[in-house]
This record gives sequence, structure tokens and C-alpha cells, in this order.
Amino acid sequence: VSSLGRIQRTAVRLFAGRGFAATGIREISRGAGLNSATLYHYAGGKEELLAAIMRTCLTELVQAGVDAVRPTDDPAVQLVRLVRTHVAVEAVNPLTARVTDHEVRSLTGTNHTEIMELRDRYESLFRDVLDRGATSGQFHVTDLQIARLALIEMCNGVSNWYRPGGRLSVPELQDRFAELTCRMVGSREVTGAECAPDVDVPHLDSEPVDDPAEVLA
Amino acid sequence: VSSLGRIQRTAVRLFAGRGFAATGIREISRGAGLNSATLYHYAGGKEELLAAIMRTCLTELVQAGVDAVRPTDDPAVQLVRLVRTHVAVEAVNPLTARVTDHEVRSLTGTNHTEIMELRDRYESLFRDVLDRGATSGQFHVTDLQIARLALIEMCNGVSNWYRPGGRLSVPELQDRFAELTCRMVGSREVTGAECAPDVDVPHLDSEPVDDPAEVLA
Repeated sequence: VSSLGRIQRTAVRLFAGRGFAATGIREISRGAGLNSATLYHYAGGKEELLAAIMRTCLTELVQAGVDAVRPTDDPAVQLVRLVRTHVAVEAVNPLTARVTDHEVRSLTGTNHTEIMELRDRYESLFRDVLDRGATSGQFHVTDLQIARLALIEMCNGVSNWYRPGGRLSVPELQDRFAELTCRMVGSREVTGAECAPDVDVPHLDSEPVDDPAEVLA
Repeated sequence: VSSLGRIQRTAVRLFAGRGFAATGIREISRGAGLNSATLYHYAGGKEELLAAIMRTCLTELVQAGVDAVRPTDDPAVQLVRLVRTHVAVEAVNPLTARVTDHEVRSLTGTNHTEIMELRDRYESLFRDVLDRGATSGQFHVTDLQIARLALIEMCNGVSNWYRPGGRLSVPELQDRFAELTCRMVGSREVTGAECAPDVDVPHLDSEPVDDPAEVLA
């Protein structure tokens, strides 16, 4: 892992635990085993660091979403593949996902604008697929905007409660969400086989680290 | 509004804006127009204040949920009434709801235990209704636990994006969520008329305050 990668992973862990505003740049440098000047050299100020974390997460999410919709023109399969991908990103990267979901409020100026644009670009993948499915008569929803927001929030929620090694593997979790999604938009049931192979999702979180000394090792 | 009420409303606004850990007790007293000793007398320390805010929110949510399921034995109507109530609480009290959703991490010891128990009690209302609807054959869901978590997260999300005075009134928003909910659990469609009257939800947030000076008036 590069110095910047180590800085970002340390920052994500601290931002997820106490929030961005409560985390000092000094804690981050200590956690990453660097002095503040070196951290500043690699990562800029604290807001730049937050923006970089969110930019990486959303850029990867957009890319994974584009990969999810590409292999087919069938809106039902595309929607399920989008949901399966989003669920996996949240399940595999709960800390990064939570920071990205909750800390938009902490960004200012061009950082805020840029991150909101990336979020809009991601949401537009859902919007396009929902629109086409409704137009083609495959989806039956009174309000596509509310369906989109409800779907995305239900996927975002995974980072709050999913624990790896629990009752469900990620593919099983994806299957459950596929069922709920098809039902919600009044689509035919899309099978897991129709969606295979799932998009490979990026691993953005560090491995769980309980002891800060491990970060320094 | 009592001094304690004013303290809690100021604290909710600050916790929602910057997070609990980044908010100082002095900012809260300043915002509430009291000195720190007076604030301490009414509200105890900062964690006590957060616990009180979350206790009030969750106690009201449990009470509203109990009121939602009471008038009928039909699980389909009960589930929709639960969702309609939750959606309204989130739409009317976005700041309190966001703090209650996100700041469990900031509680320790008995505060943490107590708030987790209240959350469990609330979720058990959904669990009971989903179980009975599945047993009676009215709901068709592979995984009731995942359906419950997805439903609650999709409702929680309302506080992130709903704006009063926008395209949808609260009752319209409730209708949209009722449709999505029935679909998701494979239930018959429950009409708004079957759910009337909706539960009166508590108003916990203060009116929007842009200028802190208004809080002092």
C-alpha cells in the first residue's frame, strides 16, 4: 500500500468512527505512521483528504455501475445488476461507504460541487434504467423518482448492518436484494443466473484493524 | 418551549450539522442562550443530552408504531401503517431522525444499551407483523429479516432527501411508500383509505433556524 493509500485508509477508519469534524489531522498522521508535514505533502488538508476518499468511492461506484448495465439492454436485468453491485460495494466497504454517504455535509465549494456531480452521475444510471423499464412496460411504479431513492437508500443501508461471516454471504445477500428489487418495481423476477457473472467490486476499506499499532507495522 | 426543550433542539441542530463528537457543550449553551452551568443543570453532560434526544425520538417512534398496529389485526394493513408512520416521522423531523440513526456509535455503557434496546423494541414491531403476515400466507418473502432491514433503511432514508414544500406532501409520500412496501413483501395492495386516519406523528425538530440569534429570541 502506498503512503497515500495508507493515509486514506486510516482517515476512513477515523471519519467513520467519530465523524470528519471531530477527527484531527494529527490523529490521522499518527494512525498512518507519518508526520503531519508528510501527510500534507501526500494528501493536502483534511477536507482534500475527505474529498479524495469520496471521489475514489464514487468513481469506483460509477465504474462498477457502468459495468453492471453494459452486458445487456434488458432494463430488468440491468436494474438487478446495478442493485447487486451496489449491495456488494456496501457490504465489502462499510467504512468507506458510510463516510461517503454521511459526510457530504462536510465538503465546501468545488469539493462539494464535484462530489454532488459524481453522486448525480451514479444515480442517473438508476434513473435511466428505471425510465426505460417503465417506458417498455416492464416496470410498474407510480413514482419512478421515489422508487429510485427508496432503492438506493435500501442499498446504502447495507453498510450499517451487514457483517461478513454472518448468516449470509455477499452473493446470498445480493439474491435477497434482487428479489426485493424486482418486486418493488413490479418487474418479472430476474434470476441470479441471468445476472452472472456479477461485477467485481473494488476493495476500498482496509482490513479490520483493532490495534492502531498494526497500521504502523 | 422549556429550557430543556430549547437545549435539546439546539443540540439536535448542531449534532446533525457537524456530528456529536465535533460539537462542544459551549456551542450548545451559546445556541440555547444559557451558560454552561445552567445547561449542565438541565441536561447533564453532552452524552446525556444525546441519549435524551435519542430516547425521546425512539420512545415516540415506538409509541407511534404501537398506535399504528393497534386498530387492526390484518398484517398487511399493520405493515403499511407502520411504514406510513415511520415515513412521516422522518419527513417531519429530519434532524432528530438523522442524529438518532447515525450517532448510536457515540453512546457508551448504559446509554448505549438502553438506546439499542429501544431500537430493538421498535424493530420488533416490524418483525412481529412480518412474521404474522408470512405465517398467514399474506406476505411472500424469502428472507423476512432482510425484508425488515431493507424496509426500515428505505424509510430512514427519507430524512436524507425529503424536503417539505417540494413535489410531494407527506400523505403523498406515504402513499408512494405504501405501494413500494406492499410490492416488496408480496402483499395485496393496501389502499390509503384502509389506513386512515394515519397516526399523528410527534414534532421533535425545531422550526428551521438559519440565524442562531433567532434561537435566543
